[in-house]
Amino acid sequence: MAHVREITLDELNTKTFIENKTQELIDTVPTGTAVNALSGGVDSSVVTILGHRALGARLKTYFIDSGLMRQDEPPRVAELFKELGIPVVIVDAHEDFFNALKGLTDPEEKREAITRTFYQEVFGRLVKDSGARYLVHGTNYTDVEETVAGIKRQHNILEQLGIDTQSAYGYKVLEPLKELRKPAIRALGKALGLQEELYSRPPFPGPALAARVIGEVTPERISLVRAATHIVESELAPTRSFQYLAILHEDRVTGIRSGRRDFGFQIEVRCWDSEDAKTGSPTRLPYDVLERLADRLTTEVPGVVSVTYNITKKPPVTIEAL
Amino acid sequence: MAHVREITLDELNTKTFIENKTQELIDTVPTGTAVNALSGGVDSSVVTILGHRALGARLKTYFIDSGLMRQDEPPRVAELFKELGIPVVIVDAHEDFFNALKGLTDPEEKREAITRTFYQEVFGRLVKDSGARYLVHGTNYTDVEETVAGIKRQHNILEQLGIDTQSAYGYKVLEPLKELRKPAIRALGKALGLQEELYSRPPFPGPALAARVIGEVTPERISLVRAATHIVESELAPTRSFQYLAILHEDRVTGIRSGRRDFGFQIEVRCWDSEDAKTGSPTRLPYDVLERLADRLTTEVPGVVSVTYNITKKPPVTIEAL
Repeated sequence: MAHVREITLDELNTKTFIENKTQELIDTVPTGTAVNALSGGVDSSVVTILGHRALGARLKTYFIDSGLMRQDEPPRVAELFKELGIPVVIVDAHEDFFNALKGLTDPEEKREAITRTFYQEVFGRLVKDSGARYLVHGTNYTDVEETVAGIKRQHNILEQLGIDTQSAYGYKVLEPLKELRKPAIRALGKALGLQEELYSRPPFPGPALAARVIGEVTPERISLVRAATHIVESELAPTRSFQYLAILHEDRVTGIRSGRRDFGFQIEVRCWDSEDAKTGSPTRLPYDVLERLADRLTTEVPGVVSVTYNITKKPPVTIEAL
Repeated sequence: MAHVREITLDELNTKTFIENKTQELIDTVPTGTAVNALSGGVDSSVVTILGHRALGARLKTYFIDSGLMRQDEPPRVAELFKELGIPVVIVDAHEDFFNALKGLTDPEEKREAITRTFYQEVFGRLVKDSGARYLVHGTNYTDVEETVAGIKRQHNILEQLGIDTQSAYGYKVLEPLKELRKPAIRALGKALGLQEELYSRPPFPGPALAARVIGEVTPERISLVRAATHIVESELAPTRSFQYLAILHEDRVTGIRSGRRDFGFQIEVRCWDSEDAKTGSPTRLPYDVLERLADRLTTEVPGVVSVTYNITKKPPVTIEAL
């Protein structure tokens, strides 16, 4: 396992870092094509603009629409990159992902199914078609650290886990952001000319909304958590918190609808104050905001009868539920 | 189904009510013995002191220790009634209840198993042994109303559901409190000379801690929710809220322990502002209190990595989870 040393926000000289990483990418991929997967998150957005700075049209950027994305996410992200002169190909892979996730409830098995579907099936096909031998990926320092510590298996951390992607999947993974945590990556994105909507957005997990569904991931359950996520993001964006999310529980609880018993769904809201995702505290949201969230989630998301707010620090809880 | 009209707190004349109900009990049970089950909740405590006022030693009071009770509850309640000169027999029925609950996850099936075990098996035995033909029970007006509306099946509402306990279980159920909601029942308890610790305590459900465990009810899971309940009650008693409780989820979530991933338990805290349990709002607890709760629950209850606070009003959620 390669040793990685963190470069903090204070240490980061964006100009030098961009020059060095650009040169490294050119040296590593002197000819031919590389691919990268853009999810719309800060890390993959920054790696996309950095990769294009280095490799230009030799970097092919794909947006894998797994069916697990947020509302309107694929076209919106493609549009933002079009503004930057970077073409993004949207790949519809709903069926691959939902088939792979069918019947799985264990979080590690779900992550593994997503990793396998993402890197092997969908990317395998794209790499084969494109002839690319390199994948440029937005792995960050927190991913490296948590994977090494065994806290969480990041789907984008194959090399750190000792998986030889060259022989396993036919391509090599390049991770130019792996020395940086989120604040440094945001600063880098700003320096690279990324729109604020992209470099300042809250973190979003690699497995997307699948990380926000406890139990089996089905199109119906993703659609519920997508609606809940849309409400939570629109209500909590003004807080400028580090991250905010909605989780669909598998547990159901008793509620009342039209005066009768309704055994319904529960949504958990989390909203984090954090510098770097390493530690965090629940944002002290005003009760007016909490009650409006509960009202909207129970009236606008079909079947939801109960809403909770997570009040635990990280550690012992993690930012995401799975 | 018998029609029941509410007597509100404002309408209630405790002196007249006590005289009338005492006379009614004497008229209904002119000779022989009656039994009642004391759980330590307000309703069953008030019905115990009222029943003894009417029937004296002809009322035999049992505390069925189902194994689902709160920490130290059976001996503490027996002691309080001993102070009032009312003898309470504690019946150990752990095995009956845990056997009946084994493998059940559906809330209605769990409630039915508890009802059956309580009224048929355990009470059936006691009634047979005691020769009693009457059960005096603390059914209140909210129970009647919610059962009639089909929101919740109360375990103590057999007659309202049209179950003939006489032929089914060999005894008749008397419900002297069924016209009253909680505030009126508390006023009645005070007028009857019950200790404040009993008449002012928060409501507690008939199925006890089984109502606070989502999924299968096992001795291990009851022991976790019992420890959590003890913490929540001791931290939230000073708020004087209507009701406060801890729920053990079946869902598990990712946490971090000693720097490593720990797929652990989640506890949900609820704390209600309410007049009568008919409607309610989450108490606006200060974040210092919420964070102390989360700290204590994650450090003192084995395996708990996450704590949430319910922010939904009733309706659409109910006071209890199941």
